[in-house]
Amino acid sequence: MIKYPAGQGPRLHLKTNPRSTKQATQYGSRGMTFEEMINQSNAYYLNRQLAVIHKKPTPIQIVKVDYPKRSAAKITEAYFRQASTTDYNGVYLGRYIDFETKETRNKTSFPLSNLHDHQIEHMKQCHQQGGLVFLLIYFKAHDTIYLIPYPLLEGFIQKNKKQSIPYAFIQKNAYACPQGQFPISVDYLSALDAYIEQADQNEV
Amino acid sequence: MIKYPAGQGPRLHLKTNPRSTKQATQYGSRGMTFEEMINQSNAYYLNRQLAVIHKKPTPIQIVKVDYPKRSAAKITEAYFRQASTTDYNGVYLGRYIDFETKETRNKTSFPLSNLHDHQIEHMKQCHQQGGLVFLLIYFKAHDTIYLIPYPLLEGFIQKNKKQSIPYAFIQKNAYACPQGQFPISVDYLSALDAYIEQADQNEV
Repeated sequence: MIKYPAGQGPRLHLKTNPRSTKQATQYGSRGMTFEEMINQSNAYYLNRQLAVIHKKPTPIQIVKVDYPKRSAAKITEAYFRQASTTDYNGVYLGRYIDFETKETRNKTSFPLSNLHDHQIEHMKQCHQQGGLVFLLIYFKAHDTIYLIPYPLLEGFIQKNKKQSIPYAFIQKNAYACPQGQFPISVDYLSALDAYIEQADQNEV
Repeated sequence: MIKYPAGQGPRLHLKTNPRSTKQATQYGSRGMTFEEMINQSNAYYLNRQLAVIHKKPTPIQIVKVDYPKRSAAKITEAYFRQASTTDYNGVYLGRYIDFETKETRNKTSFPLSNLHDHQIEHMKQCHQQGGLVFLLIYFKAHDTIYLIPYPLLEGFIQKNKKQSIPYAFIQKNAYACPQGQFPISVDYLSALDAYIEQADQNEV
């Protein structure tokens, strides 16, 4: 029988062992960008055959291409285009998944200016078609990640004239994503499971 | 009561009126690439709120970027990367849709060399997660477009050692996509409907 130190039960593999803080800093998610954390989680989900979710390539307007002999075509003039959709989509439990990731250093709220109108429009369209649509927000100051289902986002925007969503509102109504270490730094599908379960209960 | 010429019943909006062949050539799908035809169909589906399906941006490896003062960032060196997934995905009737488009001038078969291994692998992964996965093949010589569900493709590859799928096999087993004029040149969702219906029947 395993004896745990007082106050510490058996830990899920996702939770960081408090005694290995140094290692967590070195190999964990702390040195990664939020995008890298999500991509690593997606690789984990793909390997475990839990979901197929990919980041879409950055949309680029190509202006000039050189075709040198005996080597690959070289783009010599191109510009970044604004994305007309969200960054990530894929399939989970047969359902269409679509989400956008954002990060903020703001401690008290998520500024809605971070979201473009066409992104919200795309999320609305996917939601209307029955997709599971959400925002993943990384609050750097708190080191917390929340999953905000599209209906919650839409409801907030319709009811409030505010330019930002208070952190307290998100803590109360959104779904916290467990953070861990390699091979999965953000287990956002478990937050999605919690949302699906609650949404199903509300439908009954 | 509308009287139709002998042998011509009421036509679906998708079918080309044989008396307006010239106009069809001029404004129809004949001057469009297959990609343009699919993109136009997707715009139609989006406007009618039937489905949300987009082409993914071309993946590009960026090497050098200039940041000129007071103007947009300019990419000065970049290369095309091979796509690791398929070209199109989205949501239809709440379900995840994923497909690749191919065209061939071949009259008697579709050469399987047109499909990369990683594309087939991606299609398999999405199918295993419950997505609706298929190939859309445009046979230029016949001016026909067929939807080949992933299970049919997988079954053919497993049973046959051939390097190509015979056109006769496709005619017999795949789903023909109705072709029309603006605003919808390829109604591939109606071919998908036929596949879903048949797949549901086989499950019962």
